[in-house]
This record gives sequence, C-alpha cells and structure tokens, in this order.
Amino acid sequence: MAGTTDQTLRPLLWRASRLFPDREIVSRTHEGVQRYTYAEYERRVGKLADALAAAGVSEGDRVATFSWNHHWHFETYFAVPNMGAQLHTINPLLPAHHIQYIVENASDSVIFVDPSLLEKLEAAVAAEGGEEAFASVDQFVVVGSSVPDTSLSPVTDFESFVDGREADYDWPEVDEEQPAGMCYTSGTTGKPKGVEYTQQMLWAHTMASLPQSGLDIGADDVVMPVVPMFHVNAWGMPFSATAAGAKHVYPGPAPSSEDLAKLIEEEGVTLTAGVPTVWLGLLDYLDEHDADLSSLERIVIGGSAAPQSVIRRFDEEYDVDVLHAWGMSEMSPIGTVSHLKPGMEELSKEEQYEKRAKQGLFVPGLEYKVIGDDGEEVPQNGEDFGELWVRGPWVVTEYFKRPDANEEDFEDAPGGKWLKTGDVVTIDPDGYMELVDRAKDVIKSGGEWISSVELENALMAHDDVAEATVIGVPHERWQERPVACVVPKEGVDDEGLRADLQELVAEKFPKWWTPDEVVFIDEVPKTATGKFDKKVLRDQYDDESLVEGKTPDEAAPGQD
Amino acid sequence: MAGTTDQTLRPLLWRASRLFPDREIVSRTHEGVQRYTYAEYERRVGKLADALAAAGVSEGDRVATFSWNHHWHFETYFAVPNMGAQLHTINPLLPAHHIQYIVENASDSVIFVDPSLLEKLEAAVAAEGGEEAFASVDQFVVVGSSVPDTSLSPVTDFESFVDGREADYDWPEVDEEQPAGMCYTSGTTGKPKGVEYTQQMLWAHTMASLPQSGLDIGADDVVMPVVPMFHVNAWGMPFSATAAGAKHVYPGPAPSSEDLAKLIEEEGVTLTAGVPTVWLGLLDYLDEHDADLSSLERIVIGGSAAPQSVIRRFDEEYDVDVLHAWGMSEMSPIGTVSHLKPGMEELSKEEQYEKRAKQGLFVPGLEYKVIGDDGEEVPQNGEDFGELWVRGPWVVTEYFKRPDANEEDFEDAPGGKWLKTGDVVTIDPDGYMELVDRAKDVIKSGGEWISSVELENALMAHDDVAEATVIGVPHERWQERPVACVVPKEGVDDEGLRADLQELVAEKFPKWWTPDEVVFIDEVPKTATGKFDKKVLRDQYDDESLVEGKTPDEAAPGQD
Repeated sequence: MAGTTDQTLRPLLWRASRLFPDREIVSRTHEGVQRYTYAEYERRVGKLADALAAAGVSEGDRVATFSWNHHWHFETYFAVPNMGAQLHTINPLLPAHHIQYIVENASDSVIFVDPSLLEKLEAAVAAEGGEEAFASVDQFVVVGSSVPDTSLSPVTDFESFVDGREADYDWPEVDEEQPAGMCYTSGTTGKPKGVEYTQQMLWAHTMASLPQSGLDIGADDVVMPVVPMFHVNAWGMPFSATAAGAKHVYPGPAPSSEDLAKLIEEEGVTLTAGVPTVWLGLLDYLDEHDADLSSLERIVIGGSAAPQSVIRRFDEEYDVDVLHAWGMSEMSPIGTVSHLKPGMEELSKEEQYEKRAKQGLFVPGLEYKVIGDDGEEVPQNGEDFGELWVRGPWVVTEYFKRPDANEEDFEDAPGGKWLKTGDVVTIDPDGYMELVDRAKDVIKSGGEWISSVELENALMAHDDVAEATVIGVPHERWQERPVACVVPKEGVDDEGLRADLQELVAEKFPKWWTPDEVVFIDEVPKTATGKFDKKVLRDQYDDESLVEGKTPDEAAPGQD
Repeated sequence: MAGTTDQTLRPLLWRASRLFPDREIVSRTHEGVQRYTYAEYERRVGKLADALAAAGVSEGDRVATFSWNHHWHFETYFAVPNMGAQLHTINPLLPAHHIQYIVENASDSVIFVDPSLLEKLEAAVAAEGGEEAFASVDQFVVVGSSVPDTSLSPVTDFESFVDGREADYDWPEVDEEQPAGMCYTSGTTGKPKGVEYTQQMLWAHTMASLPQSGLDIGADDVVMPVVPMFHVNAWGMPFSATAAGAKHVYPGPAPSSEDLAKLIEEEGVTLTAGVPTVWLGLLDYLDEHDADLSSLERIVIGGSAAPQSVIRRFDEEYDVDVLHAWGMSEMSPIGTVSHLKPGMEELSKEEQYEKRAKQGLFVPGLEYKVIGDDGEEVPQNGEDFGELWVRGPWVVTEYFKRPDANEEDFEDAPGGKWLKTGDVVTIDPDGYMELVDRAKDVIKSGGEWISSVELENALMAHDDVAEATVIGVPHERWQERPVACVVPKEGVDDEGLRADLQELVAEKFPKWWTPDEVVFIDEVPKTATGKFDKKVLRDQYDDESLVEGKTPDEAAPGQD
C-alpha cells in the first residue's frame, strides 16, 4: 500500500502552473530569444501531446529528440512522459552508425530535430543501413516555425505541428513503472547501451535533486542548464527546476561564452550547470570582457573532474560557489555533490577547495561501497581505492536489450542489485568520494593499480604539453605498464620534453608509476561526449615491444 | 521497473552514520541531558532491534510507544521500521477507553512507556476491558535505566532491555509497501481512526520535507521537534533531520518555555516546530527573561492556525521566520508550507505577514482541489470556499479496519483516490491555502456557509473574552444558526459583553452571520490534542428552542 497516487511527473508541472503561473521560461533559439510563462508552457505541452497523439503516438511509444537546449526541447520533456510515452534524447555528437543503431534499437516513432543538426541527421538516414534503421520513424519535426530544405520525410515544423491543437489534453493515468525517459551511454567500447528511466525514477531523482544535499533549488532560483538536454536529461534540471517553480533559462544552440555571460546578466541566472570546459571558457571570456555576474550563486560542474583552479577562481573573483558533482547515465544521473560539511567553514580556504574539488558526498537515498581488486570492500580512508558500486531508487536495474552488459555491470544482492560503476574511487574519512580513474583505464602493474588520471593531470600541468593521456600496454612480467601519449605544444623539442616529463612523474609518484615510454601524437582521440577515447590508443599500442626492455626492475609497489 | 532499491528508511540512517558519524543527538530526559553521535545512535538502533527480535518481535508486528520526545523514542523510530516491523506511536493524552481501543485494534506486541506516563498506562490496563485490550502485549519497556513500582507486567527498563545485545543487527530486506508507521487520529467524533504509513510513504514524505518548498533542512541545521513524537511522527522531522545529517535535539517530557529557551541557546537550535501554544508561551517567557535565540532561524508552526501576531513578533523581535504549515495524520502529515514567493519581498511587511499567516503553498508531489457545497470545484480566488480534497504519494489510501470511514472520507478517481480532508478552505490567486473551518463545524444557514472559525477569532479578540467557540444549532427554517459559547474573563458583566460581542460581529461580517444567541460557559471542552471539542457543546445545545424567535428575518445571504 503506497500513497493515493503513483510517483509521476505530471503533478510536478501541474503544481508549477497553478502556484507559479507567471514565472518565466526563457529560450535562446535560432529565431531569437523567446519567453513565456508556466501557464503558457502548460498549454503548449497539452497541444504538443495532442499533436503527437494525432500523429499516432500512443502510450509506450518512443519519441526522440535530436536537439539543443531550448523551449521546444523542454516542451517534449513533459508532453511525452505525461502522455505515457517515452522521451528518447539522442546525442547528436554520436557517429552516424551509432545514431542508426540507437534509433533502430529504440524504435523511435517521431524525431524532433534542430535545423542546425539537420545535416547530421540526414547523413545518418542516408548512410548505408539508414533505411532499415529509421523504418520506425513516422514523422520528423524540425523545431521552430519553418522547415529548411531537407531530404527527411515526412517532415513538418514544430509550430505547424502544434498549431490548432487542443491545449486541454486529457492526460491518461500513467503508471509509475512506465518508462518515461531513455538515453544511451556513449561507451568508449562497443555499442552504446540504452538505459530507461521510469516515471518513478525521474520523480525520485527530482526529489533528491531539490534539497540542500542535492542542488538546493527553490522557487527564487533562475536555473540555466548549459549541460545539453541530451545528456541524461540535462542532469534532471528541467524536471527539478519545474518541481521548485523556478524560472528556466535555456541557452540554445552552441552558446558562446559571451551568450552565457549575457543570459546570466540579463535573466538574473542564479544556478547553472555544465562540464568544466564551458566554465574554463567563461573564465577566459570574463578576463577580457565586462559582465555582471552578481546574480549567479552556484555552478554545478560535472561530466568530468573540475580543476581546483576553476573552483577557486569562481569563488575568489566572482563569489560563486562551484558545486562539484558526479553521476552516471545509469543513475538519472546524480550520485554525489560536493558540499562542505558543518564545521568545515573553519578550514582554511585551501583545505576547503581541496574538499570541494572532490566529487563529494552521496545524496540521501543512495547506498555505495568500494570494492578492491580482491573483491573485498575497501576502507573509507581516502587512500585505498577500488571500483565504486552504487544502488538506489533512481539507479537503473538493467540495460535495454543487453543481457551481456547486464551480466557484467550489475550484481544481484539482498536489498537490491548493485550497479558496478566502472569508476575507480577513494572515499576519505569525511565521506568525500574522489574519482581516481575509470576501471578500464586503471593500469594494473605487478598486482597493484596505477591511476592513469593522476598521471595525466600531472603531465598536462606541464607548460609544453597541449594534451596527454596515459594507457596501459601489455607486459609479460608486470601484466601492464603505463605509456604516456603526449601532444606537445607547437615548436617544442620532443627529446627535452620527454626527459622533463619522466622526471616530473618520478618526483610526484612512486617509481613504478613512471611511464615506460612517452610517445608523441598529434591529437588525443575523443568520444562523442568529448572524453579521451583511450580504446583507440590502446588498440594502436597493443604491443609488448613498445615497453620491452624499458621497464625498470622496480616496476611494482613496495620497491620504491 | 523502478530503481535498483525500494524506497525505504534504512539507507537514510545508513548514510547519516557514514557521512556524519560525529554529528550529535541531544536528549533532555528524566535522567538528565544525554548526548551521543549518529555512529553511536546507529549502534544502539541495532541493539534495540536485536532486543526486540529476542523478545519475539518479527516482521509485520506492531511495536507501540507511549512516550515523550527523547533519544529512546527516536531509537524506536529507525529500529522498528528497519527490522520490518511497524511503529505505533500512541497519544498518551487520549482517554483510557480510547487507549484500550487502539492497542487492541493495532494488536501491539511491545509497548515502550515513559516513567511519567506509567500511571496513565496502568490505569488504561486496569480499567474495565483492559485485560482483553492489552492481551497482545508481551512486554512493557520503561524508557530509562530503572523501573519504578508498577502494576505492568512483564516489564523491564530500556537500558536492561538492550544491554548485551548485538549492535551489528542483520537487517532484513524490507519491501517499500511494508507498513512502517501507524498512528490514530483523535477524531472529535467517534472512535479514533488508525492510519498506516508504508516505508515508501515515509520515504517520499521525507524527501518532500527536505527542499526549500518544504522545511529546507540541511546538514548544518540543528533540529528540535517540540511537536510530540506521537503526533504523526513529530511531523516527520526525526526522519528528515536524519536524511539531511542534521543535529537532533529532543526536548523530553513536559518542557517548559525556560527549558526550550535553554536548549535553543545551548545547543544552537536553528529549526524547531510545534503548535501555536508552545510559541505563545515562549514569547511570554522571553518578555520576562533574557535568552540568546540568535542561532534560531525558523519555527514551523502547525497543528492549529498560528496567530499573525506570533509570526510578526518572532520576525520583528527575534529575526526568526515562522513557517506556517498545514497537514493531516492522513498525509504523513505535510501538505502546505507558507513560504513567500519570488517577488513578494517587494510587499510591505504587513502584506507579507498576511500571506505568511495563511496555511501556504502545497509542496511538490501533491494535487489538490476545493469542492463547494454543490459538488463543483471552486475557483482559486481567495473568496469562494469549499472542502479541500488532496492526493499524493504520502497520502494514505484508507483507514485501518474501517470500511465505514473509508467509504465516507475517500473518493475513487482516475489518477488516484482523493482524500476528503474535512477542512473547509479558500485558495487565493497566488495559490495560498487558508483554512476557513472544519467541514463538520461550518454552519449551514439558508444554503450558505458561515465559518465558525472566523467568528471565534473575532470573538476571542475581545479583551473581556477568555475563550469562545461558535457552533451551529438546528433551525427549522434556516437549517442551522450560529450560537456563540463564550468564557468571559473574571469579573466581566455578562449582559454588557453580550451586547458588545453582537455589535462586534455585526460590524465585521454579513448580518446573517451574527450569532442568534451568546451563551456563557465556564470552559470550552477540549479534545486529547487540545482542540476545541465542539461535539460536546453541540450535543448540549442540540435544541431549536435556544434560537427560537431570535433569528433575524435576514438570516440568509443576499439580504444584508
């Protein structure tokens, strides 16, 4: 016996439009900045659902988006789940064959597409295999009020699609177990894996995002998700900002640092969120330009680790708190947020930045453990590391149609399945989790682990290094040995840099962490989400000869 | 497909003891102030569960408390639900025959009792029918470390009960649908009605309590629930404060205003909660005594309406925000909290107090509607009123073993059953809900409603009135007419006061609201929770002759 209603998204919007009818939704689009209220938003959501129903979408169907952050995309966020259908947000940065794979895998029936992404989608349709892959798609809808020349068919524009439709849509009773959202993890290995978010998972994740232990969102906030809406629902912020009755600001296609600074200033943004690159760019812009950031209180940084310098600069120069956060597609996505604990206001600023640069504290509702190489739980001492396992009401229980991955990445247990995150972490005595490496990137030398991430950070701190990554290559005696793949800045002397880097590593780390080889490359290969794609390099250097004869005798722990 | 784990309470404590092991729980008891940490709390919760299991308690059994707010009571809050059993918090202010009824109805197997409440419980056991009523009880446990002389049997003290037990209890996997809590509503009519809280309802209520839209609880908070732990789980605060990792302060048996002021000062309380009387008492105490309330940020006032003067005084004199809140036992209990909305900081202080004196805004996750006398939904205009209906994931779906009440108080509907709250309310255009009356107390005259509460508030504002209540008495032509039952202050002239009061009402309200009769009484009868018991008066004055010949001809709307 639960309560009188299921845990679904519909009442969250219902409340916002009744209690905050005049609060605004602002959207930077290719047709200029548009703005309307929750009251109008609710009407448009109703019309969109009516249009989708007329286009043949019914409960359980999947509707896909291929789109940036704007009000049209946000309208699909409530219209599709509230009608009992499932919103599949496609990452447009994926290669064409992956787009084909996931559209076919998900059997999407309608795809909403940005004009600026039309070519990308057309290419995926036109490529070999496209016809079968897109066979389920009955309708393409180009966001905006006109359709550019396109080979997609049948196609219409968003405004024509909803024109004349009924705002007062008769929402069905949707079960909390009904899948409401879907996205694919852009794995660095193999095919993308689909995850489904039920109504209940999105509800629970929304409620977990709102409190102080999460993102601390209230009705007074003006929330601007810069993280793309195709990345795990923009970390759930379109839902959580609605639940709070906050004002929304969507920065649209390819926002520049100038666009972001302007939106913050003009719309009074208090809370924003995105990957580190965005904020590094904004800091650079602000060095050269005036902008009033006084409304901005907090930036949520996730996706990859935020450099401590970014946290420090926003605090010292702009009085903005960076909330470092960590999550996964499989976790809807929020797992940890790095808030200071009671009493930590007594720490020096340096110590505070160190804590805040960690991935942070698990939010209420989740359970975690860290499993070492021997399969045993590792102590919470900030030194020992192992793979992070998590579980909770907003953690998925399986991958979509992927029994192989389910076998590998989940572990049955009393009290609920564990998700093996594939992240190697330490947790310090205060409970702050810190990412050490991806499990598949950690280098196993002589039965112990070497963090590729820590080595990379050290190498990239060198002035002559543009980019660097460290991979493990097979070794007969030690199992694996580290090799550094370095992109030098222009005009740098390779040999001098090689010696420098090896010395630099030797100073900071145990001797057996020193890379056996430093190879110079033109560019680090990247995944669709901009992460280093080490698999490409590993395949290239999958050869013992690279390190043969170069490994020190002490290439194991306890010998340095 | 939900997430990997059910929504249960156990992970909330698990997180607090891992992330905030040193945060304190402070308890004022008959054995002095005691304090320990979450780490120690978790150990004691384990020992208590082990002791209960040894005493024969197993999953699904009910364990009752008859107790004030202290750490022993708090230990039952997690030990009992986490072992899959159900915590039944008994209101010790109920009359003996009601206590008998609910213990028998709930089949409690163990009862935890305060030494100060021992006599009350002994009397209920000894009274006629006690033997059958308490037949299910296998063990009485007196909180503290000794047992006073008592006729209860078998009996032990809490510390002996847990002594030597295993802290590392092997918690079972508990389903989210498992009832975890229970309390009885102390209805003013008929027998108390039991409501059961499942694990999931308590989880959802906890998550809804944490955000800014709820009570805004964070790890920095020091939370002191003055509202008794037998009143709907102290409004859920022992759970929500734990989820947040906040410090807990329990004020123990019969805390005086001085005790409360001292605890706030010494423990740095930031957030407290209770019924209006408590805070009126504290304000009186502070008028005469020095106390440092600077740590205190917010007081949650609920249970009955908070006078605007209390909200104003705490703000002006102590810089403390009063959060007016409304809820019901059937709602776990939180429904609304009166926060100011964005932009309202521009209003004058007077206008702000007026908003904050209303019961407030529904928290995210709930749905509501207001149903007028004609069965139609009433507009949100702040004037029209009707009965409030609510539904949501933490609203109970039925009363325990009471098909009669279930028929009456719930209404099936697509999307989830509605609970008919029995509260008559208005909702203003800003969405603020205001209680007008209880449905059973509203006076129906000539097809329209007269609010007994508004009349009472007007009467009680008169300097010569100690207490006053207004009831409807039957009337042949008008169906019901209002009669005021007034307790004058000592030495006041009855006839003069009667004329004064009728004039006062005539000035403020439509003519047909004027009570036909003002009767003077010695005391307004009260329920076990301190509310006016109008049923007693209605029974006494259930006689048309009281108002015969006294009703004005215009005793209907549209005629004033």
